[in-house]
Amino acid sequence: MERMLKIKVKGQEIEVPEGTTLKEIFERLNIEGALGGKIGDRILDLQTPLREGGEVKPIFKEDPESLEILRHSLAHIMAQALKEIYGTTKVHLGVGPTTEDGFYYDVEVEGHRITEEDLPKIEEKMREIIKRDYPILRKELQREEAIKLFQDLKEKYKLDIISRIPPDEVISVYEQGDFVDLCKGPHLPSTGKAGAFKLTSISGAYWMGRADQPQLTRIYGMAFWTDKELRQRLRFYEEAKKRDHRKLGRELEFFMIDDTIGAGLVIWLPRGAIYRKILEDYLREIHLERGYQLVYTPHVGKSKLWEISGHLECYKPNMFPAMEMEGEEYYVKPMNCPFHIAVYKSKVRSYKELPVKLAELGTVYRYEMSGVLHGLMRVRGFTQDDAHIICTPEQVNDVIRETLDLALTVLKDFGFDDFKIYISTRPEDAIGSDDQWELSENALRKAVEDLGYSYEIDEGGGAFYGPKIDVKIKDAIGRLWQCSTIQFDFNLPERFDMTYIGPDNQKHRPYMIHRALLGSIERFTGVLLEHYAGLLPVWLSPTQVRIIPIADRHKDYAKKVYEKLTSEGFRVEVDDRDERMNAKIRDAELMKIPYVLVVGDREVEQDTVSVRSKREGNLGSMSVEEFAQMLKLKVERKE
Amino acid sequence: MERMLKIKVKGQEIEVPEGTTLKEIFERLNIEGALGGKIGDRILDLQTPLREGGEVKPIFKEDPESLEILRHSLAHIMAQALKEIYGTTKVHLGVGPTTEDGFYYDVEVEGHRITEEDLPKIEEKMREIIKRDYPILRKELQREEAIKLFQDLKEKYKLDIISRIPPDEVISVYEQGDFVDLCKGPHLPSTGKAGAFKLTSISGAYWMGRADQPQLTRIYGMAFWTDKELRQRLRFYEEAKKRDHRKLGRELEFFMIDDTIGAGLVIWLPRGAIYRKILEDYLREIHLERGYQLVYTPHVGKSKLWEISGHLECYKPNMFPAMEMEGEEYYVKPMNCPFHIAVYKSKVRSYKELPVKLAELGTVYRYEMSGVLHGLMRVRGFTQDDAHIICTPEQVNDVIRETLDLALTVLKDFGFDDFKIYISTRPEDAIGSDDQWELSENALRKAVEDLGYSYEIDEGGGAFYGPKIDVKIKDAIGRLWQCSTIQFDFNLPERFDMTYIGPDNQKHRPYMIHRALLGSIERFTGVLLEHYAGLLPVWLSPTQVRIIPIADRHKDYAKKVYEKLTSEGFRVEVDDRDERMNAKIRDAELMKIPYVLVVGDREVEQDTVSVRSKREGNLGSMSVEEFAQMLKLKVERKE
Repeated sequence: MERMLKIKVKGQEIEVPEGTTLKEIFERLNIEGALGGKIGDRILDLQTPLREGGEVKPIFKEDPESLEILRHSLAHIMAQALKEIYGTTKVHLGVGPTTEDGFYYDVEVEGHRITEEDLPKIEEKMREIIKRDYPILRKELQREEAIKLFQDLKEKYKLDIISRIPPDEVISVYEQGDFVDLCKGPHLPSTGKAGAFKLTSISGAYWMGRADQPQLTRIYGMAFWTDKELRQRLRFYEEAKKRDHRKLGRELEFFMIDDTIGAGLVIWLPRGAIYRKILEDYLREIHLERGYQLVYTPHVGKSKLWEISGHLECYKPNMFPAMEMEGEEYYVKPMNCPFHIAVYKSKVRSYKELPVKLAELGTVYRYEMSGVLHGLMRVRGFTQDDAHIICTPEQVNDVIRETLDLALTVLKDFGFDDFKIYISTRPEDAIGSDDQWELSENALRKAVEDLGYSYEIDEGGGAFYGPKIDVKIKDAIGRLWQCSTIQFDFNLPERFDMTYIGPDNQKHRPYMIHRALLGSIERFTGVLLEHYAGLLPVWLSPTQVRIIPIADRHKDYAKKVYEKLTSEGFRVEVDDRDERMNAKIRDAELMKIPYVLVVGDREVEQDTVSVRSKREGNLGSMSVEEFAQMLKLKVERKE
Repeated sequence: MERMLKIKVKGQEIEVPEGTTLKEIFERLNIEGALGGKIGDRILDLQTPLREGGEVKPIFKEDPESLEILRHSLAHIMAQALKEIYGTTKVHLGVGPTTEDGFYYDVEVEGHRITEEDLPKIEEKMREIIKRDYPILRKELQREEAIKLFQDLKEKYKLDIISRIPPDEVISVYEQGDFVDLCKGPHLPSTGKAGAFKLTSISGAYWMGRADQPQLTRIYGMAFWTDKELRQRLRFYEEAKKRDHRKLGRELEFFMIDDTIGAGLVIWLPRGAIYRKILEDYLREIHLERGYQLVYTPHVGKSKLWEISGHLECYKPNMFPAMEMEGEEYYVKPMNCPFHIAVYKSKVRSYKELPVKLAELGTVYRYEMSGVLHGLMRVRGFTQDDAHIICTPEQVNDVIRETLDLALTVLKDFGFDDFKIYISTRPEDAIGSDDQWELSENALRKAVEDLGYSYEIDEGGGAFYGPKIDVKIKDAIGRLWQCSTIQFDFNLPERFDMTYIGPDNQKHRPYMIHRALLGSIERFTGVLLEHYAGLLPVWLSPTQVRIIPIADRHKDYAKKVYEKLTSEGFRVEVDDRDERMNAKIRDAELMKIPYVLVVGDREVEQDTVSVRSKREGNLGSMSVEEFAQMLKLKVERKE
């Protein structure tokens, strides 16, 4: 007997037999122009047979969900284009999901390495396929049929996917013209319905994301319904590309990452190192001012530490492999915690000396697959502005407030003032007592409220060992970046048996808080370079001032100005190459040097400098003292 | 036929049959009181049969070589004492050589762990054996006899030694009373001839120095002919012990090394970390002033680097073991060179930008057997004040002079001004051209001469890849410590194909110089702590001033003084515990805090502080401003 499903659309309830499609339902209800519908979290296209009832929300072009359908179909259209260009059985398709602003497809092309130069040709072919307006048809196949089909097509990766589909699950394919692809949908009714798109870039990607599997070529596309939206997004994309910290890092000689030295291992070149020194000096000073104690700890430790901490049990795949010496295993540290705990435990602690706040610019190493590494943003070795605060329950509120205040102060000092704050609370499988969770979560909430910020709660999103605050900053082109984390830990104080002597002369278990303000110096530097498009605030610029003598006879005066400014602690260069002045000015611009001082006859005569600010333009002539005074103020104010 | 040997003693030449002893020769020549003689580099006792002729220098008690004979015999006397106390076949002897001021013996005692508490008892027994005045008799044995003898004595380590003696070599033993030991000599004629001695300490030592072998107990003794010399040396030893940086490091809370974290891996505690920060800030600033460029490089690198550098070929036993990731081997870096070279090679270099001077406080890791690790002096992880200077041949002289000048300036800033300078020149199996060696060695000599110092030449003592200067400093109790090294390298520029473009527009090979000024920050800190017996110069002290309010009513004033001094950048603490003033002063003394300010009624009334200097004693009352002014001068002058 046919099973009937109860469907509710826009307030109307109807009953339809199982297997009915949304197309049929919308026709029956006179709903026009819908591209699909949403049942629960699932987006269905018009032709997918319904297996369950429920409320259906029709999806029109205006709904953001419609982009899912568009982008899915464009991935197929790109795959079809590739097969038409390179041969049906020469192109082996991997997976082709949608992304935030488009889609990608992982492909292997026999006998050809796809490069960015191929993209216009592929786009051209895609437009042709759209013009042909093939109907896009869904079919459901028996497992054997599906296997036979994809064997004939030499689609080895699709066969791999089929082998993982549970026996009771439907296997569906979508056809358009003579192209067919294993797919759950959703899709447009025909290729002609596709909107605006552009293929944007190419990268490598391992099959199944595993480094022991073949590497495929990932082709990225961007897609929207209208050309206007696409152009807007492309402009943002271009803007982001111009700000790409990898490009800036190379041009401004900040850092290098070289595969022959080690993927994800950063070498800071002299200009980047000077910036890093300034940043580190600043961080150390502000931590000392705020009552932190510095420590330095090794980059290597015995396995015992990571056994006690529990890292070997649940974090080992993210750690560098063990090194054995004299029958003992050692690990490069993935985090600083066990060492800071050792410092805490190096003597008996009284409640009178709490909170103990131990800070370190600690360089840690974590294994990441080489495929996911990305400039400074995702690396294998990075330096955390890490600290551990150990305190009594009574101190928790003050500690959290002052820690959040420090985090926001530091982020503001780097020019960020648009924050999104998230509090993650107790998950299902948590350790720790109700009291601990309540006290800690309240402290987090209260701190944000006291400081006058709003926040979002990620209910149940905390780690099993404690709740946390995350602070994200918004950059110049609107992207959010996770920076500060203030994380309670009810786990390690137990595991390492940390104690303090209370006023009752008894041992008590302290509260411990992990926190990082910038997060990783490497990643934060990437964010900073992209936020400022390389033109860092003057207090952070490797070179603050470049002096350009117009002719040879001005070199002595340039030298004098150099000496004066250097003696006041500024970072200054003289460009005394035998180049034309305009070329020198252009070079200084390219190196994003905040101030260029041009000195010629008039400046020598009047004992002045002619000041060009990269940010503010031509500031005219002034005395060296005036300039130094202005610069000093800017540095002090971190402008 | 008997072989005759030509012997020359004090100008007299005689012929004696092979096998004649020095005793017989000295008797024939009426030489009285000699304890042995020296032929070439070898010291022989009176009873060793001569196998070769040559010039013999008789050794009397006044000659330093006589101590060798004395100390050898005392090692035997200690071994005999151990056997009498713990049982002949229960004590298994390892090796028992002489040292700079005495001797040691490595022993295993079945069923007993020797501790320092056993030493007086062992000394007592040794005195008895000396009193018994056993003749010490040399015997030469057939291999089988020797094996039988030591099998009976259950001397497993001696049997191990015998198995390594080449077949054509004589096996000799020395007997005294019923004690017999495998030994080449030299020895005193009888136990009664022994001088003054003291057993000083105990440590562990692996058999053959190999961690996979059993660990023996090493018992150290000190020995001289007279009590006076012994007492002098013991006083020096006591003085050195009081200054032991391991003890001071613990008491002053500078650092900890914990076997559960990792032997030879240093954790800098907050007080040590503040000192280290000051030291590092100082080093970075002076390097920038002198035209160095800073870099930061990772602690891990691919094996390829160490393959190119040649380290995997000849330095691997000193490296931490490899870590494999994604089919590639990585090593924790034992030195910074390949990374600095990568920075140099990150762009094409013109002769105009040379010398390039790349500096880093680079933390490196080297494998050392756990048995030889010693506090901060010998560790597995340490931070070098490392730099690589790359220059043209024309720049070598200037570069070396300014580098040596910087080294001595830095050492003077830390309070050292007694230097010993060594130049090591071309060895036999060197690489590099005659020109390179000549230019480099001359530059080293000229630099020392220009700066007005004397030096010693270690002829042929250079590394195969270039000559070097070593600077040793003399500490407060007369010990020499190796600090700065300036080392030419003709090898790595070839191996890494480093070049620069000359004025001729052609590629040229630069000169490269490795240099470290303090050497290792860890080791230098050990030297500094011992040199100053913990009372560091005020610019380096973690806490420069401690304020002690006499009573509760003085706490506000103490706080005011604290604020004032802190705002001027000094490192200040207030001791406001409920303790008696004298206890607080004593605690400040123990922590070696340079200045203690006591504030009571009179100070509050007169707006002054009462100043006690740890170095200069009671300085009386002065205004806070006066004190701050004085302190500022001391810090600036690095007093």
